[in-house]
Amino acid sequence: MEILKFVPYIFLFVSLSSANSVVDFCVADFNFPDTSAGFSCRNPANLTVDDFVFSGLGVAADPLTNIFRVSVTSAFDLTFPAHIGLGLSMSRLDIGVGGVVPIHSHRVSELILVIEGEILAGFIDSNDQAYYKTLTKGDITIFPQSLLHFQINVGKTPALAFVSLNSASPNFQTTTTSLFANDLPTDVIEKITLLDVVQAKKLKRIFGGSN
Amino acid sequence: MEILKFVPYIFLFVSLSSANSVVDFCVADFNFPDTSAGFSCRNPANLTVDDFVFSGLGVAADPLTNIFRVSVTSAFDLTFPAHIGLGLSMSRLDIGVGGVVPIHSHRVSELILVIEGEILAGFIDSNDQAYYKTLTKGDITIFPQSLLHFQINVGKTPALAFVSLNSASPNFQTTTTSLFANDLPTDVIEKITLLDVVQAKKLKRIFGGSN
Amino acid sequence: MEILKFVPYIFLFVSLSSANSVVDFCVADFNFPDTSAGFSCRNPANLTVDDFVFSGLGVAADPLTNIFRVSVTSAFDLTFPAHIGLGLSMSRLDIGVGGVVPIHSHRVSELILVIEGEILAGFIDSNDQAYYKTLTKGDITIFPQSLLHFQINVGKTPALAFVSLNSASPNFQTTTTSLFANDLPTDVIEKITLLDVVQAKKLKRIFGGSN
Amino acid sequence: MEILKFVPYIFLFVSLSSANSVVDFCVADFNFPDTSAGFSCRNPANLTVDDFVFSGLGVAADPLTNIFRVSVTSAFDLTFPAHIGLGLSMSRLDIGVGGVVPIHSHRVSELILVIEGEILAGFIDSNDQAYYKTLTKGDITIFPQSLLHFQINVGKTPALAFVSLNSASPNFQTTTTSLFANDLPTDVIEKITLLDVVQAKKLKRIFGGSN
Amino acid sequence: MEILKFVPYIFLFVSLSSANSVVDFCVADFNFPDTSAGFSCRNPANLTVDDFVFSGLGVAADPLTNIFRVSVTSAFDLTFPAHIGLGLSMSRLDIGVGGVVPIHSHRVSELILVIEGEILAGFIDSNDQAYYKTLTKGDITIFPQSLLHFQINVGKTPALAFVSLNSASPNFQTTTTSLFANDLPTDVIEKITLLDVVQAKKLKRIFGGSN
Amino acid sequence: MEILKFVPYIFLFVSLSSANSVVDFCVADFNFPDTSAGFSCRNPANLTVDDFVFSGLGVAADPLTNIFRVSVTSAFDLTFPAHIGLGLSMSRLDIGVGGVVPIHSHRVSELILVIEGEILAGFIDSNDQAYYKTLTKGDITIFPQSLLHFQINVGKTPALAFVSLNSASPNFQTTTTSLFANDLPTDVIEKITLLDVVQAKKLKRIFGGSN
Repeated sequence: MEILKFVPYIFLFVSLSSANSVVDFCVADFNFPDTSAGFSCRNPANLTVDDFVFSGLGVAADPLTNIFRVSVTSAFDLTFPAHIGLGLSMSRLDIGVGGVVPIHSHRVSELILVIEGEILAGFIDSNDQAYYKTLTKGDITIFPQSLLHFQINVGKTPALAFVSLNSASPNFQTTTTSLFANDLPTDVIEKITLLDVVQAKKLKRIFGGSN
Repeated sequence: MEILKFVPYIFLFVSLSSANSVVDFCVADFNFPDTSAGFSCRNPANLTVDDFVFSGLGVAADPLTNIFRVSVTSAFDLTFPAHIGLGLSMSRLDIGVGGVVPIHSHRVSELILVIEGEILAGFIDSNDQAYYKTLTKGDITIFPQSLLHFQINVGKTPALAFVSLNSASPNFQTTTTSLFANDLPTDVIEKITLLDVVQAKKLKRIFGGSN
Repeated sequence: MEILKFVPYIFLFVSLSSANSVVDFCVADFNFPDTSAGFSCRNPANLTVDDFVFSGLGVAADPLTNIFRVSVTSAFDLTFPAHIGLGLSMSRLDIGVGGVVPIHSHRVSELILVIEGEILAGFIDSNDQAYYKTLTKGDITIFPQSLLHFQINVGKTPALAFVSLNSASPNFQTTTTSLFANDLPTDVIEKITLLDVVQAKKLKRIFGGSN
Repeated sequence: MEILKFVPYIFLFVSLSSANSVVDFCVADFNFPDTSAGFSCRNPANLTVDDFVFSGLGVAADPLTNIFRVSVTSAFDLTFPAHIGLGLSMSRLDIGVGGVVPIHSHRVSELILVIEGEILAGFIDSNDQAYYKTLTKGDITIFPQSLLHFQINVGKTPALAFVSLNSASPNFQTTTTSLFANDLPTDVIEKITLLDVVQAKKLKRIFGGSN
Repeated sequence: MEILKFVPYIFLFVSLSSANSVVDFCVADFNFPDTSAGFSCRNPANLTVDDFVFSGLGVAADPLTNIFRVSVTSAFDLTFPAHIGLGLSMSRLDIGVGGVVPIHSHRVSELILVIEGEILAGFIDSNDQAYYKTLTKGDITIFPQSLLHFQINVGKTPALAFVSLNSASPNFQTTTTSLFANDLPTDVIEKITLLDVVQAKKLKRIFGGSN
Repeated sequence: MEILKFVPYIFLFVSLSSANSVVDFCVADFNFPDTSAGFSCRNPANLTVDDFVFSGLGVAADPLTNIFRVSVTSAFDLTFPAHIGLGLSMSRLDIGVGGVVPIHSHRVSELILVIEGEILAGFIDSNDQAYYKTLTKGDITIFPQSLLHFQINVGKTPALAFVSLNSASPNFQTTTTSLFANDLPTDVIEKITLLDVVQAKKLKRIFGGSN
């Protein structure tokens, strides 16, 4: 009996070696343009296990150097291309005492896990109902896709949390920088938010907006 | 030759009459609970063409009775259940002189068509880049899913526009009412937006928020 | 306190500038081949607001120069690439008195809004049930994806309507041109439709078919 | 060492027994209404292997009793509920000599495999390009979703083929019965197809239409 | 000026209160049957923030009581219904020294984050290429959907990790229990795996299989 | 009356000829890299009907030359690029007497149709419940996506079956070759499967694995 001539499958093993990443995985090749549905993929034959491991989430970034006292270290499409197309990414949050992840949203859902400290986490639904609670070690909560949400370190020590999102390209939109870090005219901001001009100008100064 | 005994198809016509709405369409039956993926459907045998026609978008609502001088009349899941599951809805916007659709977002994309007047329409992408321009009769623009956007009547006459969204359940989230029309504490708002307390309290009064 | 060193986010702003269009939007770059899932995208850094505005729907095309007395002006993938991947497109219909949008279908759903005139609009479901009604100003109806549908100007004046579809690439298939505007042999047409040969040949002459 | 106390997994085995069909499979329970996204599922605990086997495709139906000399025997949602939600269905086609599957379309793609005989199979794309060829034993071709297509037995013996579609609810729309098997008025048909009234009335008589 | 009569939106706030969960979120109501596309949803009006928080991941389960020396504590559809339909779930893994998460797969992708200890993590792609590496604190790796993967504690202390999956209903399939914990006959197992009968019977004894 | 100047549509016919494949179909062009969402498409203008027909499933391959006595002939992405993006593929199975399709899984669902012989077909769900039955001519069964399944020729003659899968890129993962045809160390295999070392080494020899 010939035991090694498993011909059809062996044929598959060989012929698929450069093309089957479409289903299994796609490690992005940034030399090609991205498309409306994703990135071009590297040849699987050139990949090693190191392409699938990201080691940057073990060390705390210093959250004290910005106004919100928060550091976000992200393994997403550009920094961890192995998970592109697989519908997952992860970020490490270091929030200093009194620090804040300001109100923001993104197209995909998010799950937060608290490892250390006390974090007030909340989201607002499309009926304007606010859901918020202080989470401690081992607690998780969910922020449904596209809804505004936030986190505040309300404890007396630095807080550490990990968030998982169900896209490799979550594209955060932070409300304050969306309004105040660009050239949107102050009178437009006033009209679309009902904020006072003085307030809007103050925030433009903080975030570097013009006009 | 028997010409009417097209048996297999005739069998299909009959047996499918109560169940094939899954693919063709689903006119929601609000007597049943909704599911994570949609609504229960009415029996197609009980439907008439009137279930597929919505006649409420021909008349201007009065946009002068609210603070934003805007009226939004919507044909969406609850008011026009015929298009549930079909991935489309439509709203009529009447914007008084100086009126505004305040900054908001939703999970799905939106296309706006200006019929009368001059509307400054804009959106902000996740890099904080603002794209805005004054549209006139016959112009359309697109607001990509989940991104903040707004419209302002910058002309000297009332403006009329129609917007189309690619879901029957778009679930608008208006930034100002999300922040100021509920019980989110003022000190939380201050932290997550960097707004001054006085400003936040003023907006809470306008939108009916507590705390 | 340092207020401008919002390091992690500023890092994101910069590094994402050429690649984050995957989620936000994709303005097609027709210099690259399209893929089974969409088009290649232009670099967002080179876009302006004008790439997101289409101004061609304000003027009536002349609907009297063709046999159906109808003009269709479309903002879809090739004419308005900004909305590619966002799941929406729009067309303007000008239908002369007695004019017709002949029976057709497409993979995606369509919503029609009547602005002027009287339009008999209808669709047929997969049980062969026909739903049709005369619509007037401000009425909308829905044509579920993939089902045959049509519009007829049944009024005494030209009619104007806008249709919205939930894809930037709707790919219309008009039944009559599918059958009679190509080389499909007349005897094949006879068999698959039960039309008489004389009738089929007459329609081939109208639509330019051969064989 | 305790080898049988694999506690966490055993817990999973038990607690999931009534609810995990959402991902694995869903054998429809027709006692509940269907929803915009599918059917209610039977309790997996009450299923046996026979719920997953359909035995009706082995016997030829008589294709001579209808005008098209074709029989279609289908394993789809209503006749084979086990594959609901799994994105596949299958039909057996028996086509008599000279028999025809008339021109039709459906929302999903179809793959046809010829087992016996000679079948002229074709489809027309949205540019009105017709693709058609005679297939023999062992040939397959594809009909892309939503496009018009047909099959004709052009051989001298009965033909047998199997078709696979990527939905359990394909919802066929046959062009001729859509137009002529209901109450769509003859003058409407004339306008939307350019068919002569005499021809339309003849086809209405064949398919049982009124008006 | 009337500032509180923001009529259209206020109308929306009220009328949507029982039905808009379709888009925002769906906290499952297990009193209704599940469907091919998900669960029925509880009325949002009856929800509180506690429905969105899961507190069970902070405490280590004892991983020594089973043969693999592993404990899996999961926040998924049945234990944390708030995230149903949102495409995310999370589990805590406690792996004793020498402990193992045996080889398994699931329909969705998984991301693992190591918090403590040394974990050899690996997956095998559909070309039979194995990717495996020892991960330490702060490392993450990805297991692409549907592919076989495993984790082994290769360190000298207990290991702790959290995994995130992009479905609330991941439905694990562990290879060994699939083969040996049911009534699949030993001779069938022998044929489909090429395992020796003696080996198969030994594993059936371990996992409680019959036949 | 001018009958041939159907201007708007004729415009569409021409301008769309190189780009509309996005919706209709995509015949892969392997000269370009694949993306996370699929392949680049050939220009439709260069296609003929032969690009849509695959003729390789009519002839039995010899199933006796490998250890499982099975031949799998597949029309999938690389061998039949016309159906890429259309969500369907088909394979022919020739199983010798006593032959086996060993236990395997893939991301997509599969439907099997028996043409000749007796095939014991089965799958195991994520609760470890095994469903298996002997199928004969004309029987079909379904293997839900991602679940382990197998086929054995239990009859006295060669068996023939066709399987349809709802992806052009199904990416089979055969359990035995995943474990034993690569460099996964034997002690790792022992731990993650509980197989004896002697057994694992025997299988490595059969399938050509190292370590």
